[in-house]
Amino acid sequence: MKISLLHLVCLLFMVFLCRTASAQNKIVVFQSDFGLKDGAVSAMKGVAMGVSTDLKLYDLSHEIPAYNIWEAAYRLLQTVPYYPKGTVFVSVVDPGVGTERKSVVLKTKSGHYIVSPDNGTLTLLAESLGIESVREINEAVNRRKGSGKSYTFHGRDVYAYTAARLAAGTISFEQIGKQLPNQVVSISYQKALMENGKIKGNIPVLDVQYGNVWTNIDGKLLNQLGVKYGDQLLLTVYHLNKKIYEGSMPYHATFGEVQEGKPLAYLNSLLELSFAINQGNFAAEHQVQSGNEWKVEVSLVK
Amino acid sequence: MKISLLHLVCLLFMVFLCRTASAQNKIVVFQSDFGLKDGAVSAMKGVAMGVSTDLKLYDLSHEIPAYNIWEAAYRLLQTVPYYPKGTVFVSVVDPGVGTERKSVVLKTKSGHYIVSPDNGTLTLLAESLGIESVREINEAVNRRKGSGKSYTFHGRDVYAYTAARLAAGTISFEQIGKQLPNQVVSISYQKALMENGKIKGNIPVLDVQYGNVWTNIDGKLLNQLGVKYGDQLLLTVYHLNKKIYEGSMPYHATFGEVQEGKPLAYLNSLLELSFAINQGNFAAEHQVQSGNEWKVEVSLVK
Amino acid sequence: MKISLLHLVCLLFMVFLCRTASAQNKIVVFQSDFGLKDGAVSAMKGVAMGVSTDLKLYDLSHEIPAYNIWEAAYRLLQTVPYYPKGTVFVSVVDPGVGTERKSVVLKTKSGHYIVSPDNGTLTLLAESLGIESVREINEAVNRRKGSGKSYTFHGRDVYAYTAARLAAGTISFEQIGKQLPNQVVSISYQKALMENGKIKGNIPVLDVQYGNVWTNIDGKLLNQLGVKYGDQLLLTVYHLNKKIYEGSMPYHATFGEVQEGKPLAYLNSLLELSFAINQGNFAAEHQVQSGNEWKVEVSLVK
Repeated sequence: MKISLLHLVCLLFMVFLCRTASAQNKIVVFQSDFGLKDGAVSAMKGVAMGVSTDLKLYDLSHEIPAYNIWEAAYRLLQTVPYYPKGTVFVSVVDPGVGTERKSVVLKTKSGHYIVSPDNGTLTLLAESLGIESVREINEAVNRRKGSGKSYTFHGRDVYAYTAARLAAGTISFEQIGKQLPNQVVSISYQKALMENGKIKGNIPVLDVQYGNVWTNIDGKLLNQLGVKYGDQLLLTVYHLNKKIYEGSMPYHATFGEVQEGKPLAYLNSLLELSFAINQGNFAAEHQVQSGNEWKVEVSLVK
Repeated sequence: MKISLLHLVCLLFMVFLCRTASAQNKIVVFQSDFGLKDGAVSAMKGVAMGVSTDLKLYDLSHEIPAYNIWEAAYRLLQTVPYYPKGTVFVSVVDPGVGTERKSVVLKTKSGHYIVSPDNGTLTLLAESLGIESVREINEAVNRRKGSGKSYTFHGRDVYAYTAARLAAGTISFEQIGKQLPNQVVSISYQKALMENGKIKGNIPVLDVQYGNVWTNIDGKLLNQLGVKYGDQLLLTVYHLNKKIYEGSMPYHATFGEVQEGKPLAYLNSLLELSFAINQGNFAAEHQVQSGNEWKVEVSLVK
Repeated sequence: MKISLLHLVCLLFMVFLCRTASAQNKIVVFQSDFGLKDGAVSAMKGVAMGVSTDLKLYDLSHEIPAYNIWEAAYRLLQTVPYYPKGTVFVSVVDPGVGTERKSVVLKTKSGHYIVSPDNGTLTLLAESLGIESVREINEAVNRRKGSGKSYTFHGRDVYAYTAARLAAGTISFEQIGKQLPNQVVSISYQKALMENGKIKGNIPVLDVQYGNVWTNIDGKLLNQLGVKYGDQLLLTVYHLNKKIYEGSMPYHATFGEVQEGKPLAYLNSLLELSFAINQGNFAAEHQVQSGNEWKVEVSLVK
């Protein structure tokens, strides 16, 4: 078979198309405390579209309470693992913008990328998915052209721009900037553990829409208590070591197994122990909030 | 003309590209009562992206009031018909999650797919667009891998996953699960009808942003009253048969035809009779709400 | 080299693919005062998907306060320039829907398109990016089929539909409708200027999430005052010529340079003079709002 120039062009063209199709997944997911009332989130997406219109831009949440780094950390933990490998996340909850906090990209062992200030936002993901590598963004090259005089919108000019270029394959992970040690700034909180027949843990976050109280105690640890569906659990909630709530309730697989208005314990969608009132609001009723300052103790009522 | 192997590869490749381009529309539209403050909606989209990064993911609303099945039903009615055939909708308003309610996919006669618990959410679409077929989701095969122990996030692990696979063409409609009878669980409400010279109807929903009161009375039924622009209509509103409001106002084509602060009747964007105060809030001013428990009577003032 | 029919088909097919890839950017960005609680925004996107599933649909904001044309104008100014050339914006803040206000498409000198009622929404973009051309939408041809009887949802039936067809290349800019003079309806406000050693300006908008007060005074004008980092600025705020606030604060590059709870002046992400309380809410504390009725005076404390 004689291969003509035209044949060759055809072949190269097909190879090009296939290569494009099999490159990075081109997904960028945005999180911030900007809210959706102004144009800040949209401007970040505009910058990303300016890098490549092939990118697919999605949102995690922009309703992170202002400056609440802990909640930003938790929302990433709750969401990142469900996206395919290669997805690039941008998180901009940055009370220290303009100070010496570093701008970094974390590559997790699961193959996800997170572009964020290194201010505690990466605490939970680093623990959960593991750190493959951390690089500091070199703003000399990874900054939107013409943005040099703006000191306050790193989210748009550095983070969104860098995330888009990484997701589009314009730059490699190595081109982000210099490699840092495999660690991130971490926020301290009560780890889930068993002690004297009680489980201690943290309230990382509320299921805000319904007022359910989520803990960081997973089903395996709960099993060590020997809990079965229908058993009663005693729950005590502390804020900075002050007791806020104490009460007992049954452990069930689904809300429908208790009457409307009654409390229950259950495993949430992350398979972690949670507390709710069926069709009610547990957190509001008992003034329970969330964050690294909140602790729970759980034991089995025999 | 001699056809070489290379020619054949070329041709097959082109056929492949064309087939891909002409397959299902790959659009998935999400609705829920989750709100946008946490990562639940984003996790659903992550699961969908994990099925295929070619999908186009959009939102209907995630601000459905918690557990409000009626409003979920109405938002689908308001939106589904404007999307092209083949679009797959996911609706997760599911107070009975984990109980015996079925998880289904409705295919409408218009060629739209809706993935939802069969708990009344499909009431209005089934009436309006017609039921082509209903299938129960076989969770043995249509469930995200590794999600077997999670009982409470069907939205992510079953609904989003199944919708994404259907939209991407990974599974056919038949592979959803077994076919059910052509019916869905329905919520009862006042149908629009003429009786003794009055039109009776329902307030399916408010135009919440502006406080306008929408009814299910369409323009054709209104014509049977012989109403012309400028005519006065007498409106009576009932909640569970208790009179909440009575008053009259002119029927106009546009808001601009009455003064600011004055009430009017008009046809909304669904061509259904609605009541508003020009640049004011009719619902708030007169304590009118919406849902299957709300009724209106409308007659012509002569 | 002999060119066979098959070769020709191959070539034409490649040309077709390339042409498709290099056409308009296919991005449509939506803004409105509809909120996200109902299906209105989603119905607009459904109509756009019905025009072409290749479009990429994004949002600016749908939380523009109801009927607030000024804020719609400002959000466009804040966002449009960050999107690539050829992006089509749809803005639907339209208190005069159904009256004689014109429906237009503005093409800016920067190559962006904005589909909007010509009611003041285009004031700031026209000043900032310049008017390349304005065309009035010919609704006889640029209106969704079957929508003729609906008088109140121009956003969906005319604006979203026209924007989608323009972005998809279904119609050219010329096919929008007849060319109008190069001007748009404009809202009057205090332009930024220097007078007797003071700078006068407007508060176009608040950074609502944080309560920061933004002005239209850019860094260059500020330089004419001879301001350096660390200098004190005296700020006076007026609403309709009534003094609302007077106070002085240092000018800094970043929030971190003043203590928590202390005020500062800084350049925001648009490089315009702004006022904030570090980790506090300047606007709420001092009852400052925004819009064309709000003015500021700024001078250097020596």
